Amino acid sequence: MKFLILCLCVLFHGITIPLIEAKIRHYKWEVKYEYKSPDCHKKLAITINGGTPGPTIIAQQGDTVVVELQNGLLTENVAIHWHGIRQIGTPWMDGTEGVTQCPILPAETFVYKFVVDRPGTYMYHAHYGMQREAGLYGAIRVSLPDGQIEPFSYDYDRSIILNDWYHKSAYEQAVGLSSIPFVWVGEPQSILIQGRGKFNCNTSGIASGLCNATNPECSPYVLTVVPGKTYRLRIGSLTALSALSFEIEGHNMTVVEADGHYVEPFVVQNLFIYSGETYSVLIKADQSPSRNYWASAKVVSRNSSTPNGLAILNYYPNHPRRNPTASPPIGPIWNDIGPRLAQSLAIKARKGFIHTPPQTSDRVIIMLNTQNRINGNVRWSINNVSFHLPHTPYLIAYKHNLLHTFEQNPPPEGYDSANYDIFSVANNTNATTSNGAYRLKFNTTVDIILQNANTMNLNNSETHPWHLHGHDFWVLGYGTGKFNGSSDPKRYNLVDPIMKNTVAVHPYGWTALRFRADNPGVWAFHCHIESHFYMGMGVVFEEGVERLGKLPNSIMGCGDSKGHHSP
Amino acid sequence: MKFLILCLCVLFHGITIPLIEAKIRHYKWEVKYEYKSPDCHKKLAITINGGTPGPTIIAQQGDTVVVELQNGLLTENVAIHWHGIRQIGTPWMDGTEGVTQCPILPAETFVYKFVVDRPGTYMYHAHYGMQREAGLYGAIRVSLPDGQIEPFSYDYDRSIILNDWYHKSAYEQAVGLSSIPFVWVGEPQSILIQGRGKFNCNTSGIASGLCNATNPECSPYVLTVVPGKTYRLRIGSLTALSALSFEIEGHNMTVVEADGHYVEPFVVQNLFIYSGETYSVLIKADQSPSRNYWASAKVVSRNSSTPNGLAILNYYPNHPRRNPTASPPIGPIWNDIGPRLAQSLAIKARKGFIHTPPQTSDRVIIMLNTQNRINGNVRWSINNVSFHLPHTPYLIAYKHNLLHTFEQNPPPEGYDSANYDIFSVANNTNATTSNGAYRLKFNTTVDIILQNANTMNLNNSETHPWHLHGHDFWVLGYGTGKFNGSSDPKRYNLVDPIMKNTVAVHPYGWTALRFRADNPGVWAFHCHIESHFYMGMGVVFEEGVERLGKLPNSIMGCGDSKGHHSP
Repeated sequence: MKFLILCLCVLFHGITIPLIEAKIRHYKWEVKYEYKSPDCHKKLAITINGGTPGPTIIAQQGDTVVVELQNGLLTENVAIHWHGIRQIGTPWMDGTEGVTQCPILPAETFVYKFVVDRPGTYMYHAHYGMQREAGLYGAIRVSLPDGQIEPFSYDYDRSIILNDWYHKSAYEQAVGLSSIPFVWVGEPQSILIQGRGKFNCNTSGIASGLCNATNPECSPYVLTVVPGKTYRLRIGSLTALSALSFEIEGHNMTVVEADGHYVEPFVVQNLFIYSGETYSVLIKADQSPSRNYWASAKVVSRNSSTPNGLAILNYYPNHPRRNPTASPPIGPIWNDIGPRLAQSLAIKARKGFIHTPPQTSDRVIIMLNTQNRINGNVRWSINNVSFHLPHTPYLIAYKHNLLHTFEQNPPPEGYDSANYDIFSVANNTNATTSNGAYRLKFNTTVDIILQNANTMNLNNSETHPWHLHGHDFWVLGYGTGKFNGSSDPKRYNLVDPIMKNTVAVHPYGWTALRFRADNPGVWAFHCHIESHFYMGMGVVFEEGVERLGKLPNSIMGCGDSKGHHSP
Repeated sequence: MKFLILCLCVLFHGITIPLIEAKIRHYKWEVKYEYKSPDCHKKLAITINGGTPGPTIIAQQGDTVVVELQNGLLTENVAIHWHGIRQIGTPWMDGTEGVTQCPILPAETFVYKFVVDRPGTYMYHAHYGMQREAGLYGAIRVSLPDGQIEPFSYDYDRSIILNDWYHKSAYEQAVGLSSIPFVWVGEPQSILIQGRGKFNCNTSGIASGLCNATNPECSPYVLTVVPGKTYRLRIGSLTALSALSFEIEGHNMTVVEADGHYVEPFVVQNLFIYSGETYSVLIKADQSPSRNYWASAKVVSRNSSTPNGLAILNYYPNHPRRNPTASPPIGPIWNDIGPRLAQSLAIKARKGFIHTPPQTSDRVIIMLNTQNRINGNVRWSINNVSFHLPHTPYLIAYKHNLLHTFEQNPPPEGYDSANYDIFSVANNTNATTSNGAYRLKFNTTVDIILQNANTMNLNNSETHPWHLHGHDFWVLGYGTGKFNGSSDPKRYNLVDPIMKNTVAVHPYGWTALRFRADNPGVWAFHCHIESHFYMGMGVVFEEGVERLGKLPNSIMGCGDSKGHHSP
């Protein structure tokens, strides 16, 4: 029966999967707090089976991943999102608290079960409160079925996740963000490469005994390579705040994958990567094998004081802990948008793997990204509406017709473009908060124009990586300044646009996306900067919920969903 | 209809209440994290409507208290226990997570509604994880109905709560307690009197900018008195760990109430008070009105480094912030059990207000209090069984016949007294953990003998304040050494024993209690030291659950109770 459902589901979406080989990948995870020193500074982190990052999920296309998640936190709930997995037919497994499920209570076990229907590089992370930055995250690597090969060759496959790290707890940060006066989280203390960074214990913390520079937990991450071999390095970013530039001293990188889609290869010296994005790059160990090399991750787009994160590319048989003899790369200038925009524009679908987008769309929603104050609190808003989550998850509310549980006024389709100056500080005094949602007609094509603007600070506009749940979208174009609805669409790339699930809108710029509303469910679309989403930078799309069967009981139990399931 | 229920309930318990005057006392509380500096050191505290302690509930006997509690924490649930309120007819309102209700989820509102059926001094506090020490607590003061008078006279009525305060978060403490190797929470940084203490900012913390000795939040609590007047001071203790001695320089105190029961008055210079206890003392402002006086709370029973907590007894019209000219009282020696036992023995029911206890009991349960290691973790055990809470609250499990949700083997009725040396370190290697419960036959009389013993450290036995939910018990006797089942019961006070809800078992001693199992529900009985209960020092009693009507839906939603309620 289970097999049959899988068949139908897969055929329906027209993807060829060798069903005969599909496996169940079973994981048993316990989530709890533990003291960790990922950057030498000891603090509580949320771990999975004792680690942060958690275990890497390794599966093949078509496999079913089953994660039995036990919440071992004392008083805190949890929910885990499978970032980049579209959850076709299982929208209740998206792990987005308030959207697709109630949170998982302490001592309870929730079973996530979903099919990984495409090969590629994905991630998972907490999607509740600001728990992601407490350390609850990891990588998902989906390979092709046996016998199929990638359109590029490499000898070894490695995954790393980049992150930024704060010494204050997620609670402390959240309280500051909700306070009047506002207390900004500030720049992170460290950049972590695969969970390892280095805070300078001399700066502070020594007195309190919390920092230990010789703790093995904060020795740099080591990627050992055999001279002459080619490595596929899968790089994901789950930073709370930082846009990063990643590079390896003396080694070019060939970009071949973005968010699970093959990229027409191009070579970079440094890779810009925004929170929520994944890339595969090919690296050939073609430098002098007599020493090791630095890998470095630097904050860009913010004038950050955070030191670059460092890891070691270890040429076998050099000692993996031997520091490279050269200085680490300095990385690009933080405030030069040019190279970042250039990289965005360089990413196109690989020939032979192009999903041609629909040439027209049924609906265009323009989303102005602004900052403002609402009731004294600093908030981010989309078209002057600042988002907050309802108590009853949308998926349950729509399916069970509990429409009183959230605002029924849909958010606006745009803003007063003619009269809005995106280059100056605007008061946006008409901003409100709402948990209204966009309802999309099933199987229609939707365009989203993300329009960036000035923040509440003079001459400041930030980079926002927007992540869409449940879909990949085509990236039709980027531009600087204000989007022009009549001329800019003519410049859309409708030939070979890349499909992604996360894309940046650059400072004072715009980004145009297109997607098909063909996945029944309710899906979040939000800035992947943890504090920005917490401060209202997101929206929700509903599509085709009426096509779904019975929702599982396990997602219920909060808000008005307490009584809406049988024993 | 509501009035009728109240009538029946009240008549059933044979208490005369002037029903005509019963009022609804309505409170609307928002619980959230805020930065607070109760002892000059800034940390996150859980507040109610912005404060810790929370608002004092002031009601009259027979009133219905309604607390509409909104959980404003981000990812953390909550539950509040109304300490000393027996919840007759409303066992689901006891606020004990895992016993009487599921926790209240973030953004949800739970309505606590119960009758305060006796005058006296009570408290409320979180009963979930270790949240109590995060600051979620307050006082309940129930006065006599208009026209009735107390059997003692005073001019003014004041409430204070004593507490101890840690700079580590409750999470950090809990993680240490659950770790291998074990990390003990240690002595508190400060003692708070009505939410105010003073940490020495010079000791540490200055560097990190978290300590500010001039923060008005940590100016001492001031109790202003008019010379010549008599004050009823209601003192409660909700310490996480510490047994305290409270005294006011130069002022005797006449003890008149304990845990809501009138005490045959006796005079003390210092009052010993254990976590979970409340007392009323009368103080006459009969000293020289030319200056202020210190009130002081000192840790006893532990060799603590924590400085005494200080408050100011301000003689009007002296300036309330003027420090007393004398030195604060030093307080009693920490390790002299004699005076503490003497105070315990001095507390008897006031003549004219004696509830004569049943002269015999139907069942005797002996509870050996020991420490041990189970699977490498340090735990407290009762008769070698270390308690842990189930996922489905007992009350729901019993009422809905979900008996598979917890261990059906009841805990033991006693221990091998003949062969156990309470004065030496015992390995207790046969200790286990369990969530089994005692089922009590309805309307029977139960005796509990709390038997203290040596901990895992040589020559060490601690003070444990045991608190019973849903009942008051008669304190029949105290003794030193091992309880003798044939001779000691002959020395029980069956004439005028005080009734209490919390009582201490002194180091190497025993305490004998008796109560009537006449309140249908499931009730926790546990050591009120937060870390001790967390480490397993508790049990649960079930009685007469079959007599209860339908449980409210609002307590459901966790464990196996997700489906057991209708919309």
